[in-house]
Amino acid sequence: MARKAVVLLSGGLDSATVLAIAADSGYACHALSVDYGQRHAIELNAARRVAEALGAAEYRVMAVDLAHIGGSALTDRDIAVPTAATDGIPSTYVPARNTIMLSLALAWAEVLHSEDIFIGVNAVDYSGYPDCRPDYIAAFERLAQLATKTGVEGGAIRIHAPLMQMSKAAIIERGMALAVDYSLTVSCYQPDSRGGACGLCDACRLRRAGFDDAKVTDPTRYA
Amino acid sequence: MARKAVVLLSGGLDSATVLAIAADSGYACHALSVDYGQRHAIELNAARRVAEALGAAEYRVMAVDLAHIGGSALTDRDIAVPTAATDGIPSTYVPARNTIMLSLALAWAEVLHSEDIFIGVNAVDYSGYPDCRPDYIAAFERLAQLATKTGVEGGAIRIHAPLMQMSKAAIIERGMALAVDYSLTVSCYQPDSRGGACGLCDACRLRRAGFDDAKVTDPTRYA
Repeated sequence: MARKAVVLLSGGLDSATVLAIAADSGYACHALSVDYGQRHAIELNAARRVAEALGAAEYRVMAVDLAHIGGSALTDRDIAVPTAATDGIPSTYVPARNTIMLSLALAWAEVLHSEDIFIGVNAVDYSGYPDCRPDYIAAFERLAQLATKTGVEGGAIRIHAPLMQMSKAAIIERGMALAVDYSLTVSCYQPDSRGGACGLCDACRLRRAGFDDAKVTDPTRYA
Repeated sequence: MARKAVVLLSGGLDSATVLAIAADSGYACHALSVDYGQRHAIELNAARRVAEALGAAEYRVMAVDLAHIGGSALTDRDIAVPTAATDGIPSTYVPARNTIMLSLALAWAEVLHSEDIFIGVNAVDYSGYPDCRPDYIAAFERLAQLATKTGVEGGAIRIHAPLMQMSKAAIIERGMALAVDYSLTVSCYQPDSRGGACGLCDACRLRRAGFDDAKVTDPTRYA
């Protein structure tokens, strides 16, 4: 029987590529989306389609209401999504997001008796979020080992972040080689009601530049 | 203005004492309960009453559906709550619970610009859960520093676990000195519909022994 992995899946380009990498490595992939009150449910629909297309063993959504505490342009409608590059950590940063998502993935991994969690964080073409750096992932892996029955009983929990050192173009090239259908994915922070991308936000700009650099036709539907 | 702290509050004896300690230390306390699908909403009602009685600045409940993944006697009705001491980690262990609760507390702390989080974990009279040990708390503190805008921008996030090395009797004595009304708290893993304690589960046995050792009359209502 294939080893099980929990794969965090957002509906975007990066995590779709991670799911393809995990599946290609032979894991039975249990895909998890976290509904943290982000502005667009479109992202969750995209995640479900990606999970199906890439043959995930299972797809689940876990809800946690971060909109309740606000503090980010992605969860608080009173904070505008920036449409130009900013200095420092941008307003789209969601407080403790990756820590919350990895915690939920860890809980599910324990129940599944899985020791492997995949996440699509990237420290190259990224938005400057603190919880996307290698030191952060290493710290979570240490924590997971101490936090769990799996770890205490001798298991070795691994947080896999295979995109960490890849450029957006390299991520796209890897995904194309694994037959990822990027037309299913949505990266935009403020898509229109039919999933059309704005072309202006940080996520759109990183995505478009990635397709340009990879010399791959961008399948994104722009609004 | 008082420094703000986020205090995790379960409705039980330990976290009520922690809230009293944090308030006594001069913090403006933002009390947080996490509704993770535990069997008894009675616990959350107790938490709200404790927050009010101890003068918390604010009380919030954040919901995350762990019942969805099961794996614990506290969230899965198909797993029985044990009524005698067991070897190893008991079935009441909730996968990654403290990691999830601390992550949510961390998110709220960031939004509040607070660097202080309090949690009532204890490594003396406890149930053998891995995520109640000093190494675990230290690992989460390191993670929190790397995970957040607060940490990156020079703040020093602290996870306070003031009960860590205290016996249950010492916790009760400290709480009595701070005028905690323990009749408001509920420790039982399987209280009846009116909050009456079973007197048999691990949590009831630890609580009863603590009151005995402290030579304090136990205000618990037994079913």
